[in-house]
Amino acid sequence: MGIRSAVAGASGYAGGELLRLLAGHPEFDLFAATAHSQAGQRLDAVHPQLTGLDVTLGATAPEVLAEADLVFLALPHGESAALAAQLPAGVRIVDLGADHRLVDADAWARYYGGPHAGAWTYGLPELPGQRERIAAAERVASTGCYAATITLALAPLIAAGAARPDDVVVVAASGTSGAGRAAKAHLLASEVMGDLSPYKVGAHQHVPEIKQATGVTGLSFTPVLAPMPRGILATVTVLPTGGTDPRAVLAQAYADEPFVHLLPEGRWPHTAATLGGNSCHLQATVDVDSGRLIVVAALDNLGKGAAGQAVQNANLMFGLPETTGLSVWGTAP
Amino acid sequence: MGIRSAVAGASGYAGGELLRLLAGHPEFDLFAATAHSQAGQRLDAVHPQLTGLDVTLGATAPEVLAEADLVFLALPHGESAALAAQLPAGVRIVDLGADHRLVDADAWARYYGGPHAGAWTYGLPELPGQRERIAAAERVASTGCYAATITLALAPLIAAGAARPDDVVVVAASGTSGAGRAAKAHLLASEVMGDLSPYKVGAHQHVPEIKQATGVTGLSFTPVLAPMPRGILATVTVLPTGGTDPRAVLAQAYADEPFVHLLPEGRWPHTAATLGGNSCHLQATVDVDSGRLIVVAALDNLGKGAAGQAVQNANLMFGLPETTGLSVWGTAP
Amino acid sequence: MGIRSAVAGASGYAGGELLRLLAGHPEFDLFAATAHSQAGQRLDAVHPQLTGLDVTLGATAPEVLAEADLVFLALPHGESAALAAQLPAGVRIVDLGADHRLVDADAWARYYGGPHAGAWTYGLPELPGQRERIAAAERVASTGCYAATITLALAPLIAAGAARPDDVVVVAASGTSGAGRAAKAHLLASEVMGDLSPYKVGAHQHVPEIKQATGVTGLSFTPVLAPMPRGILATVTVLPTGGTDPRAVLAQAYADEPFVHLLPEGRWPHTAATLGGNSCHLQATVDVDSGRLIVVAALDNLGKGAAGQAVQNANLMFGLPETTGLSVWGTAP
Amino acid sequence: MGIRSAVAGASGYAGGELLRLLAGHPEFDLFAATAHSQAGQRLDAVHPQLTGLDVTLGATAPEVLAEADLVFLALPHGESAALAAQLPAGVRIVDLGADHRLVDADAWARYYGGPHAGAWTYGLPELPGQRERIAAAERVASTGCYAATITLALAPLIAAGAARPDDVVVVAASGTSGAGRAAKAHLLASEVMGDLSPYKVGAHQHVPEIKQATGVTGLSFTPVLAPMPRGILATVTVLPTGGTDPRAVLAQAYADEPFVHLLPEGRWPHTAATLGGNSCHLQATVDVDSGRLIVVAALDNLGKGAAGQAVQNANLMFGLPETTGLSVWGTAP
Repeated sequence: MGIRSAVAGASGYAGGELLRLLAGHPEFDLFAATAHSQAGQRLDAVHPQLTGLDVTLGATAPEVLAEADLVFLALPHGESAALAAQLPAGVRIVDLGADHRLVDADAWARYYGGPHAGAWTYGLPELPGQRERIAAAERVASTGCYAATITLALAPLIAAGAARPDDVVVVAASGTSGAGRAAKAHLLASEVMGDLSPYKVGAHQHVPEIKQATGVTGLSFTPVLAPMPRGILATVTVLPTGGTDPRAVLAQAYADEPFVHLLPEGRWPHTAATLGGNSCHLQATVDVDSGRLIVVAALDNLGKGAAGQAVQNANLMFGLPETTGLSVWGTAP
Repeated sequence: MGIRSAVAGASGYAGGELLRLLAGHPEFDLFAATAHSQAGQRLDAVHPQLTGLDVTLGATAPEVLAEADLVFLALPHGESAALAAQLPAGVRIVDLGADHRLVDADAWARYYGGPHAGAWTYGLPELPGQRERIAAAERVASTGCYAATITLALAPLIAAGAARPDDVVVVAASGTSGAGRAAKAHLLASEVMGDLSPYKVGAHQHVPEIKQATGVTGLSFTPVLAPMPRGILATVTVLPTGGTDPRAVLAQAYADEPFVHLLPEGRWPHTAATLGGNSCHLQATVDVDSGRLIVVAALDNLGKGAAGQAVQNANLMFGLPETTGLSVWGTAP
Repeated sequence: MGIRSAVAGASGYAGGELLRLLAGHPEFDLFAATAHSQAGQRLDAVHPQLTGLDVTLGATAPEVLAEADLVFLALPHGESAALAAQLPAGVRIVDLGADHRLVDADAWARYYGGPHAGAWTYGLPELPGQRERIAAAERVASTGCYAATITLALAPLIAAGAARPDDVVVVAASGTSGAGRAAKAHLLASEVMGDLSPYKVGAHQHVPEIKQATGVTGLSFTPVLAPMPRGILATVTVLPTGGTDPRAVLAQAYADEPFVHLLPEGRWPHTAATLGGNSCHLQATVDVDSGRLIVVAALDNLGKGAAGQAVQNANLMFGLPETTGLSVWGTAP
Repeated sequence: MGIRSAVAGASGYAGGELLRLLAGHPEFDLFAATAHSQAGQRLDAVHPQLTGLDVTLGATAPEVLAEADLVFLALPHGESAALAAQLPAGVRIVDLGADHRLVDADAWARYYGGPHAGAWTYGLPELPGQRERIAAAERVASTGCYAATITLALAPLIAAGAARPDDVVVVAASGTSGAGRAAKAHLLASEVMGDLSPYKVGAHQHVPEIKQATGVTGLSFTPVLAPMPRGILATVTVLPTGGTDPRAVLAQAYADEPFVHLLPEGRWPHTAATLGGNSCHLQATVDVDSGRLIVVAALDNLGKGAAGQAVQNANLMFGLPETTGLSVWGTAP
């Protein structure tokens, strides 16, 4: 057996995508897949897309996870800290939840409530120097789906001084899998199909993570639920400083990145082109009327926004080529 | 027979919706429905949802339309001016296209090209004083779908000095019927379903109309194609001046309007709630992080954004109650 | 006030559509809208598409409903009988649930369980003689959505001897609103969008109703959940007897029906053309390979399959023109 | 370089999926991707999901394709025969089109017209003995998407005498990618979303292929266009002979097949579980009312129904493990 890998929270959407990626990964071998209410069920009863994988969901027992080399935590926000605290040093952990992302304990208290579990190494390898930090870390807080999308669009521009950090407006639409698999009436297909609905307008819990990761100081972020299962499209508008060509900054930042692609001029990102893969597509232009810089980013919220990102981080943590077991191609149409 | 009404451009989506509304209108009687390549066909072959309406599409002949009391022009942008010029005074015309909306001939030339046909009375009755102007007009340029959505969200705030006109950022997503019925590869269902795609980023032809109707001087407008047949959701962010409570301004502006509803606090507009009706739903809040005012508006691009709006204008032009033949209810789910 | 009308089960999808229809009905005035867990809420919080209707949901109290002239029961299957039993004679009732549809108590026991409440007048006016029975009835069991679709396709053919009743195969796909508004994981948008899934294969509880209404003796019925909010498309295959031209039978049966349309040859029904209206579209042909007769029927499961049908029945029960407050036009695209 | 592989018809949906699979295949190296009107374009402009693959579409020139070891023909039906005829012996060809599937020249003439190009080895490896024939063949006619779905459901049952071949009724719904990428009005997103529409009712050109592959002698086949990009769900009803347990027949037939899965009892196939993979899911039961056997099959029309199938065939033709470069996992939600 290769690297013994476990997924806690295997019954959710991110968990299912992780299991799909692990099933095709040459080094990470599935050792345990755990769940709460669905423990005891066959995996393919919970994730029919994994029919053929002979796995039974176990209970989320720390003593089982402790025997793994690598544990992915794909739990609801606020539930991973307690579990992680019970796992011994030496077990490498990638947390897909928000518990260990924020450095600022006040921001945690304000947006999530409860005790702050402390920050882990932030799992977005494309940030300067971050790849090395992740490789050296035992515990990594994988970036959130909205934060990944917006940070990949903005961070290099802010860092290079090409865009002002104090007046950023983001409207980002997400597919429904980002809202999780719990049965809620407003997520019923009858409600969502044919509909666009904004939510948590004016105060979204991902704002502090986005600010922390991008260096933005003033952020208006409005998320919208879109009638599609996967994908995030972020439209970012920001004031250019005029000092540097923004497209050139993005081109340079991502020139050698395997998963982040600045598209040729004239082509704009759209979500379907990233579905099922670990890529993020970017484009930027200056609005002729307002002079604002518009950057659009698209990715798969379950891919580069969750499970793909987590595997990318884990690859780094185990010294594997970063692209191992990951695809850059989307499944379209 | 009541008021003899004709629809030119009856084979398109706006034309179809107009015919549906006319079929239920107690005063406007369908006199002619005309088309180009589909002339000669039974209406229900082109619009199966109108099965039971015994109409044959005619050719778009000025001499036929000239016999009507009321002509709706639902033609592609740039095609209605030439036809309108051939219709005699006395025939009331509502143009659903852009040809006669812009006062500024330069803006027309820059965004549409070709000769400027001159502006008609602008057909958005909810603007101050506009209802009376429409009632007195023989020719009305009905507002565009994006402009209607954004103007209903913004115009009272700008007029009241509650929001600054010089730094407005709008991201608006539209269903596919807004892109028309011409067979284009990027509008195929295989391309659109499961996908969000921005288009005409940085320079959209509706910018001058929006600025003219709202009083905005600096506008960043990014449209997005969404995987649904109908509906526009506009997320408008603007800098509040602090002088007046924005929600109170909107509440007052629309207190007596039959079709525009500021929702109770905490409820946000979503497109499905407006489908098939002539309503526009609004909500506003101030972003806790950035201090920007966020106004969200939703409507049906074929309803209050096109055909419903046109009928509302025509009702005014003929002295009928403004709500005649129009519904405020959406068809959901 | 006109006819005092109440809707029990107002928070569900059929209830919402009923309220939309009542809002536009010239004779039926809304007197009470009741719900269970949502009692006490504003109607527009539960049905945002009815924003503008100033109604608060009440509790489902028999003593309130008893004061109405007309009560629509839009409750889950099995819940209307007990409530109906508490309403006095003189109150006309249209039940949208299954409780009083089946004549055969054994079939009820086998498919639904619990005591059989007894059959009411079956509410499908297009069946021979049924219109008159409904007009004379105080209590009507409105037909189910699948049964309506399949019965309109089949009943005249069986009755005329044009098709054999003993070997009928139906595959029918329904939009998700047919599955109700309860929050269930398999009805989440993430699960349904992009997916087709059969359910209750081999033993569906609507089989006895379909057989009773059509006269079919041998029926294979497979329902499929389709990724759309509304609409049923039933593909019915049956062995023609050869004695009579099946299309001619359908043409004659529905020649004077306002809501059922046999389409011109070559045009096939599709669900979108019926959305929001009370129409059913039909077409038939003989398969060149197998010689089987294929009849396809489409309708809106919330329209002619539920709320529209119920209003049509109520119109008859009150001696109103059958089409009062109902539209034959679909809202498309 | 490994096995030099070319794709003719690279701009279509099946072509795009082939290129995605080839990009991840360890032995088949892309040598040429050709198109007609899109020749000269960058591949990622035509297939944005393949951004990162540095390929330019070439013209469909026989002299270029002749230098490949392996050519996939992903052309419209009727266009591959002429091209194949110009390729020298020694070049292995997998045709995804219909040109070489039918043994019966009359059936070709009747359903497709034009001269019959003659039958190649039929490319459905799961048919008895077919795997070996494909391995020995230089030219293989890969099965069609509907035929693959229905044949996998039916062929073992007919062959084992468990089901009668003379009265088979199939209703199968397909996602829109099965209809190709040509811009046609009835395939616009506005028309398809929220809609189910049957097509070619009573006489579909895939009937002879299905009969040939399954051994069925009497077939009623009704295809339906469903509002989703990918996936086929076939509901097959057939008369059981009573001699053998149908589920046992299917279980035995596919016990060792890597891509075809009979689901555990009680779980029914749905299309989303197969998306992006090369799997086919099956389930069967006997209808309690009619006694008919109902078999449901689901697959991805671009996967096991087209590109995946083609790669599976090519693997066999080159003596590679049949599963090379193919996934059995679906991408869901």
